[in-house]
Amino acid sequence: MSEKNKGFFGSQDIDNLEKRFRTAFINSLSGFKSLGLIGTKDSKDQTNLAVFNSLIHIGANPPLVGFISRPGVVERQTLENIIETGFYTINHVTESFFKQAHQTSARYPKEISEFEATGLTTEYKNDFFAPFVAESHVQIAVEFQDQVHISINNTVLVIGKIQAVYFPADCLFEDGALDLEKAGSLTSLGLDSYHKTTKIGRLSYAKPDKMPEELNVKYLK
Amino acid sequence: MSEKNKGFFGSQDIDNLEKRFRTAFINSLSGFKSLGLIGTKDSKDQTNLAVFNSLIHIGANPPLVGFISRPGVVERQTLENIIETGFYTINHVTESFFKQAHQTSARYPKEISEFEATGLTTEYKNDFFAPFVAESHVQIAVEFQDQVHISINNTVLVIGKIQAVYFPADCLFEDGALDLEKAGSLTSLGLDSYHKTTKIGRLSYAKPDKMPEELNVKYLK
Repeated sequence: MSEKNKGFFGSQDIDNLEKRFRTAFINSLSGFKSLGLIGTKDSKDQTNLAVFNSLIHIGANPPLVGFISRPGVVERQTLENIIETGFYTINHVTESFFKQAHQTSARYPKEISEFEATGLTTEYKNDFFAPFVAESHVQIAVEFQDQVHISINNTVLVIGKIQAVYFPADCLFEDGALDLEKAGSLTSLGLDSYHKTTKIGRLSYAKPDKMPEELNVKYLK
Repeated sequence: MSEKNKGFFGSQDIDNLEKRFRTAFINSLSGFKSLGLIGTKDSKDQTNLAVFNSLIHIGANPPLVGFISRPGVVERQTLENIIETGFYTINHVTESFFKQAHQTSARYPKEISEFEATGLTTEYKNDFFAPFVAESHVQIAVEFQDQVHISINNTVLVIGKIQAVYFPADCLFEDGALDLEKAGSLTSLGLDSYHKTTKIGRLSYAKPDKMPEELNVKYLK
């Protein structure tokens, strides 16, 4: 890329950006994001569904997954239900219902379920307390473990333990990796952009003495 | 998806998975990840470069970006340099150098720079202390702000303030969003899988009284 085609924002430029412009810009910089619908229920059986684009792998042993909850109204309902009941579901989003997923970010009043408002379907199974999204191909049952307060801007990292996973059987590789691309899971960018993926390659475990090779792992089934 | 094509792992199943299989499986569940090369330098001018797949948007005002640092050797060198010097760079990864990016995760001894070992090029500009990756199209200068300890599995959320951003000028939308797909930024999945993206659509800000519409935002240039 030649220098003349480069854009540049310095610290002062960023400070001076119009507020919504800056929000869109800074939100883009952290790259493609992990997209999931979080399903919860309060103690009065009122269901809630909200889209999050900040899923984070925390660790495999114990199996922990995290997400960032911001101090907004929509996200607070999810966090309150999680803390009150201890359980939630994470459901991957596919192209067939990405608009409904996005729509869960509207500020519905607490007495309206985003499942009903957006036309997505609650699914209960194996006695798990919280509702899954029936339309989702990868569904994860999670038990709340911990919340880590991020004081610098008043957000919360919510951490849960993975209790159960439902997934398309033909998407599991022999080595345990799940082919989310084959499963149709989407990724998101910035505040409002949704993307499919095309695999370039899987690479062998990196060792200092040689460059990585492309792996050709078979599916388990 | 019919029930017979569904895979299922319950809590006991997950506990019983072979260790590497479980690591690959659980790493996949959090979805497509934000990929970045973090460039640092210690106080003796020794450069370091490491790939991270856990970039997280923390907030836009102030402009904050985070990543998870695990207690491994490779990631510890990055974290030590960041704490020692206060500065680092985040560089997006494109298809033209994704193998070199992956290779930075090999356990090179501290006295070997992953820039030299993998053939990526250091770039210094505007008096910023830490090295950028010259091959990268989206380069972010970051000043260390805070580390949040995640005690449940001994990882650290590292938070920094965005000081400057270099990006392809033709990828900036009128509303401030950056088109990382046009810029060629990749996303990753699990431990070792790299993916390009194809945009499905940008959606309008969600409001309770109507379903979102697809946006057609122009580029600023």
